[in-house]
Amino acid sequence: MTESVHDYMTRIGQAARTAARVIARASTGQKNRALLAIATALDAARASLSQANQLDLDAGQRNGLEPALLDRLALTPARIDGMIEGLRQVAGLSDPVGAIRDMSFRPSGIQVGKMRVPLGVIGIIYESRPNVTIDAASLCLKSGNATILRGGSEAIHSNRAIAACIQQGLAAAGLPAAVVQVVETTDRAAVGALISMPEFVDVIVPRGGKGLIERISRDARVPVIKHLDGICHVYVAAHADLAKAQDIAFNAKTYRYGICGAMETLLVDQSVAAAFLPAMADRLRAKGVELRGCERSCALIDALAATEEDWRSEYLAPILSIRVVDDLDAAIEHINQYGSHHTDAIVTEHQGQARRFLAEVDSSSVMLNTPTCFADGFEYGLGAEIGISTDKLHARGPVGLEGLTCEKYVVLGDGQLRGQNA
Amino acid sequence: MTESVHDYMTRIGQAARTAARVIARASTGQKNRALLAIATALDAARASLSQANQLDLDAGQRNGLEPALLDRLALTPARIDGMIEGLRQVAGLSDPVGAIRDMSFRPSGIQVGKMRVPLGVIGIIYESRPNVTIDAASLCLKSGNATILRGGSEAIHSNRAIAACIQQGLAAAGLPAAVVQVVETTDRAAVGALISMPEFVDVIVPRGGKGLIERISRDARVPVIKHLDGICHVYVAAHADLAKAQDIAFNAKTYRYGICGAMETLLVDQSVAAAFLPAMADRLRAKGVELRGCERSCALIDALAATEEDWRSEYLAPILSIRVVDDLDAAIEHINQYGSHHTDAIVTEHQGQARRFLAEVDSSSVMLNTPTCFADGFEYGLGAEIGISTDKLHARGPVGLEGLTCEKYVVLGDGQLRGQNA
Repeated sequence: MTESVHDYMTRIGQAARTAARVIARASTGQKNRALLAIATALDAARASLSQANQLDLDAGQRNGLEPALLDRLALTPARIDGMIEGLRQVAGLSDPVGAIRDMSFRPSGIQVGKMRVPLGVIGIIYESRPNVTIDAASLCLKSGNATILRGGSEAIHSNRAIAACIQQGLAAAGLPAAVVQVVETTDRAAVGALISMPEFVDVIVPRGGKGLIERISRDARVPVIKHLDGICHVYVAAHADLAKAQDIAFNAKTYRYGICGAMETLLVDQSVAAAFLPAMADRLRAKGVELRGCERSCALIDALAATEEDWRSEYLAPILSIRVVDDLDAAIEHINQYGSHHTDAIVTEHQGQARRFLAEVDSSSVMLNTPTCFADGFEYGLGAEIGISTDKLHARGPVGLEGLTCEKYVVLGDGQLRGQNA
Repeated sequence: MTESVHDYMTRIGQAARTAARVIARASTGQKNRALLAIATALDAARASLSQANQLDLDAGQRNGLEPALLDRLALTPARIDGMIEGLRQVAGLSDPVGAIRDMSFRPSGIQVGKMRVPLGVIGIIYESRPNVTIDAASLCLKSGNATILRGGSEAIHSNRAIAACIQQGLAAAGLPAAVVQVVETTDRAAVGALISMPEFVDVIVPRGGKGLIERISRDARVPVIKHLDGICHVYVAAHADLAKAQDIAFNAKTYRYGICGAMETLLVDQSVAAAFLPAMADRLRAKGVELRGCERSCALIDALAATEEDWRSEYLAPILSIRVVDDLDAAIEHINQYGSHHTDAIVTEHQGQARRFLAEVDSSSVMLNTPTCFADGFEYGLGAEIGISTDKLHARGPVGLEGLTCEKYVVLGDGQLRGQNA
């Protein structure tokens, strides 16, 4: 008799909740031993990982998976190296769990402060990249959380092979198997169950396209740390160093077109537009970037006419919209209205303008004189990231170990009572 | 022609979003001037506040409102004093907005840190107490947020009169009226609209009974900072100072029966149960507290037999359930299973046991040798609280000014580019 998906997921959830208590109190040393043992297991399993991955690649080809998706699916030796290196890096990160801050005495005589603790059970839902299995599991493990991983059905054999390595590592460190569980069924109902069990799951992190994330956010009964789009701006302000501005804007657009921190709209102050735009446009066009400008831009450079839709577009492609704005206020207005509150930069040498931009632009990262493509957990020093949050509550911007924890109040006394003190 | 509720709420939402940008960049001085001017306006409006409140009280009596609700509805001179004093206290709190922390240089040459900023627009949904209008508005204003307040229909005249004072104060400080808006319609559809406008509202704080909060959490499309129940425990452990333990448990239960930090279940280690429970039970019974014990408790004291349901009950009344547990692990197990993750305390002089309890109990406040009734924003030094969150994400425990803000990344450079540095 087969188990229903609902019963299967309930069993997974219960096991995760129980394991969460064990991993929450595991020492840093024990967690690091597990991470390094998983790395060793992966290194020893290269042949079987490749075989399992080949099954997925063959099935993908049979099912007509797009070349880009097949590429993401491939577990090349370099990607296995990357997973192993990632595990070692996470082992090297400092452990956020248990840190106590701001303990102070209150007039009543109690001492109040905050302790950083794991969230509990984290559900990760992701698409074709099997290396996410290791990236996500390692960050959740180091931050003291139990993890339930639900990868794409197209990567099921690869994910199972990786899961076997994770199990070896957990066992070697004396940790229960349910600290990291990989959902073994490809039934889509498993996702529905995972996002509807607040009694077993504390937070869901979806990793994938905007469609997946919107669907999960809409249906989830568990909080979701989500990353929607990155419509990032660079504003070349009055008082910008125009040579610096050109390098920054060029880097922001062309470092990589497909990352969420790529600039999608260039805003140029009207006071510098004539001096700045022609050379900038030449350089971008020479690189093969299609330009779409507002009316004032098109009077200065050769560009297609931008439509209202362009200001709301995340191209993730060699396309750039350009708008000339009246002043700082107009730039902030444009960004807050059309942007996605992800990452936005100003280029200026004017202290007052910089200060206002950084304070008033309502984005998860605000930048001065540096390109938006720096928006990344590694570049920020988080060591690794599980994603970039475009939410305001809880984690905002790149989410590393700290974003997978929360703080609880710790109150210490020695018999103090309420309502009975001076 | 009358406006639909949907159109009305959309207009309120748009106005709040626009006003949020203004209040977000207002100086501390300007915000404090507004708070103090509201206090002055309330003081000058005592007569009209009482008249408006009398309309609500009369209507409440006609509609057969329960005495407890009528009591909450009353704006007595002492409550008006309380509102005025609260405004002055909030004006005296330090302003969290704009604080920058942890700025550090990265290998690329960029400097990365975090800046504390307002959440944006906060919707408050509350029931009969009109003084919540001032409490909530003052905390949101000080933390740089725009607020939309939706009070109970039974307090509509009082809330309008208070809103008029708020408007006077905002105007006196040169702030736009839409920084604090009171929803003027009593149509219930207004609540549905308020919790479904993520484009205009960043977070909802419901203040009221569990039913209200569950309903809003279920239906909201905007994040909710919620406070469900407080099933709080005191665990009298082995190595407890039993005299201290008796005072702590007595205070935790009897300081006030109706607060969320009141102890609902007393856990007693089996090693001290015989020495501790009889005198404890006598003292509680003498105070009029009904006792419901597990089998082992009932062998030591005169108590009703507790059922499984008792362990899951928030009595908010002079009733206490008592359970004898085998050891620390059993106590933690009981609390994590039956508790509401609100506030739980251990009484012990044993360092190792205290350390484990504080780390492993998964509650928003964990306490040592002090009663659970200390769970309160004022007692914790937050100055004031908008509520106590039982969520894990974002704010956990008493929520003050910091809980009404979030942090964004600030990245400073001087022309650094990605992928081009050593």
